[in-house]
Amino acid sequence: MKAEIISIGTELLLGEITDTNAPYLASQLPLLGIDLYWISQVGDNQARLVEVLKRAWQRSGLILTTGGLGPTEDDLTREAIAELLGEKLETEPVLEHEIRGFFAQRGIEMPLSTIKQAALIPSADPIHNIRGTAPGWWVERDGRILIAMPGPPEEMQHMWHEEILPRLRQCSTGGIIFSKTFKTFGLPEAAVGELVSPLLSSVNPTLAVYARTDGIHLRLTAKAGSQKQAEKMIAEGEVSIRAILGEYIWGTDDETLEAVIGRLLVEKGLSLAVMESCTGGLLATTITDVPGSSAYFKGGLVAYSNEAKIAYGVDAKIISEYGALSPEVAQAMAEAAKMFLGADVGVGITGIEETEAKSVGMVYIGMDDGKNRRVVKGNYPGSRPRVKRRATTAALFELRKTLTK
Amino acid sequence: MKAEIISIGTELLLGEITDTNAPYLASQLPLLGIDLYWISQVGDNQARLVEVLKRAWQRSGLILTTGGLGPTEDDLTREAIAELLGEKLETEPVLEHEIRGFFAQRGIEMPLSTIKQAALIPSADPIHNIRGTAPGWWVERDGRILIAMPGPPEEMQHMWHEEILPRLRQCSTGGIIFSKTFKTFGLPEAAVGELVSPLLSSVNPTLAVYARTDGIHLRLTAKAGSQKQAEKMIAEGEVSIRAILGEYIWGTDDETLEAVIGRLLVEKGLSLAVMESCTGGLLATTITDVPGSSAYFKGGLVAYSNEAKIAYGVDAKIISEYGALSPEVAQAMAEAAKMFLGADVGVGITGIEETEAKSVGMVYIGMDDGKNRRVVKGNYPGSRPRVKRRATTAALFELRKTLTK
Repeated sequence: MKAEIISIGTELLLGEITDTNAPYLASQLPLLGIDLYWISQVGDNQARLVEVLKRAWQRSGLILTTGGLGPTEDDLTREAIAELLGEKLETEPVLEHEIRGFFAQRGIEMPLSTIKQAALIPSADPIHNIRGTAPGWWVERDGRILIAMPGPPEEMQHMWHEEILPRLRQCSTGGIIFSKTFKTFGLPEAAVGELVSPLLSSVNPTLAVYARTDGIHLRLTAKAGSQKQAEKMIAEGEVSIRAILGEYIWGTDDETLEAVIGRLLVEKGLSLAVMESCTGGLLATTITDVPGSSAYFKGGLVAYSNEAKIAYGVDAKIISEYGALSPEVAQAMAEAAKMFLGADVGVGITGIEETEAKSVGMVYIGMDDGKNRRVVKGNYPGSRPRVKRRATTAALFELRKTLTK
Repeated sequence: MKAEIISIGTELLLGEITDTNAPYLASQLPLLGIDLYWISQVGDNQARLVEVLKRAWQRSGLILTTGGLGPTEDDLTREAIAELLGEKLETEPVLEHEIRGFFAQRGIEMPLSTIKQAALIPSADPIHNIRGTAPGWWVERDGRILIAMPGPPEEMQHMWHEEILPRLRQCSTGGIIFSKTFKTFGLPEAAVGELVSPLLSSVNPTLAVYARTDGIHLRLTAKAGSQKQAEKMIAEGEVSIRAILGEYIWGTDDETLEAVIGRLLVEKGLSLAVMESCTGGLLATTITDVPGSSAYFKGGLVAYSNEAKIAYGVDAKIISEYGALSPEVAQAMAEAAKMFLGADVGVGITGIEETEAKSVGMVYIGMDDGKNRRVVKGNYPGSRPRVKRRATTAALFELRKTLTK
């Protein structure tokens, strides 16, 4: 079944709110084995709304709309669907009774316009809305299904989950779609693309490559008749992907690098301390975004100036001999952080974040776990937030290497 | 001029990412007096992409696309536009040279597929992309303008702001919509709404209230025949707003609290040091997001444990006597940060960020500028990132107060 999502509301076209309903519904459809080909946003204008609905009715078997079911004059979804199908709107007494009851129960006077929410067309079944007054519509005609939901995300999601999803499950005959995301760091997007190019031409499972702030992600998606079969296809694909990119993959799906590191530190019973210059605290705050990080994170030292580095225990001679941006200082920072805060593992980052500087993005990352010390050099040019973000990701990636060795 | 936005990428149809590019562009168009009628999201499929482009070409004078300009096989925007217009793609030697230079400068080997980003059609002018390798396209033909931008929001926004907006301003003829945003902290949304309620009923200029992570924002929007007239209306409205909310307003429009503080520190020739526990480095990294912050930021100390606080110079007796979560310790942290790093102003934050804790969100913020010392108590319950963000904003807001007194 091919699906289409239409989000309705002029506020979407003014950029006043971001449409989160479409991505929510989009993420739900693969679980039903339904392909989504089209999403669009349209304003509170009946002519344009009917135009979009007509096209959807021609090309899609399942149409999901959100918004435009409210009580005000600019709520036109009911009117537009009636026009699309050439059917007449009439007030449904049972719905009217329910809506009046909603207000009576709360002791609020009902604005008269609210009654328009009780209107139906012959092809539409009302969908119960426990979170608000506007019922949804389930319309079936000519082999197509059109489902109209309210716009407020909480009402929409509740209606979707409780009323619509169970009913759609019965209609859906197609297989299911299952996917797994592999997260890499250390290679540019094009290089990842070239390495996995033999897999990119596969039709099922498909493989897609995306650039994200924490590295390059690969998404493997399988279509199959059952969950078990889809999982098997993904498992087979995973073997190929790991054979090619194994050392660059640091996690899958919802995992974050900071959570992976937290887990490794807890497993090994190790504590961590960091000293950072160019990332200015981003490494520390990223590490402490993980719930429970206070158990293993001893603390962080932000050393923008040489004086601060020296106050934290970096040897002034090393700075004057090699310069603040050097592998030697990165190493000394890792060691000093470890010593100063009595941690098992220390990380040091030194680099250039000022966007005006010529060598912006050049970074040295030092690691010291008491047994091994090493420094890696990175180059992450770009805007200031980007330099900070990429250098932090690189440091976490290197820390993961240290902890898994 | 009627505009249409097309966001390209299969990940949008899978609900893996939310389209923030369309709302960003949608919010920009009113400033140019351009009406936006249509937004759609389409996957990385050439046939469907061409179908959407053809319809847009028929009904819209200005078409803005984002995404699909990358180096991989599923980046098809260039190919689709070429098909739409029946023009041939050819590699542009100057662009090829620039792209090769981008990699050479960074000492990275260029994957061959990257060269497809240097392709143009006769009707397309390249748009410079300082943040990445994919140039945008500015296409003019048959009285229509089609502008293709890269998908990564940072690249897109920079290109829009620096290259596209100035050029579109010359094309636009309609009236002007001008707005100004006032940013407040310290009052809940409903309280701000009540205070300004007489202004909320104004039709032109309009006033809207939004809750944001850095406080409550008020946006005043005027429609007028000229920029000058619109600015006059905004200036008059600003007087009323400042009369009501003056002490809570910390900035306007694109200003950030951290930039406001940076400016104040530079003006007064003062330096800053911070010690933070529950915010875990977020205060330091927020301060260092400001270009040039190395001039006034001496450094930051992340003290998750009491041992770390003591190592940084907080008196162990104060901790044992009053407990880590106390105004006394917040004060001692501010003082110790100032002393340890030789700064003029010190800030200390102590609080509870573990979401399981009963008093999660309770925060003490200490300030020490050598002459005055004070501690404020805050309560910012919520998820871990929210506690960290709100406590950081509160600390910056209090620091602004200290610096403006």
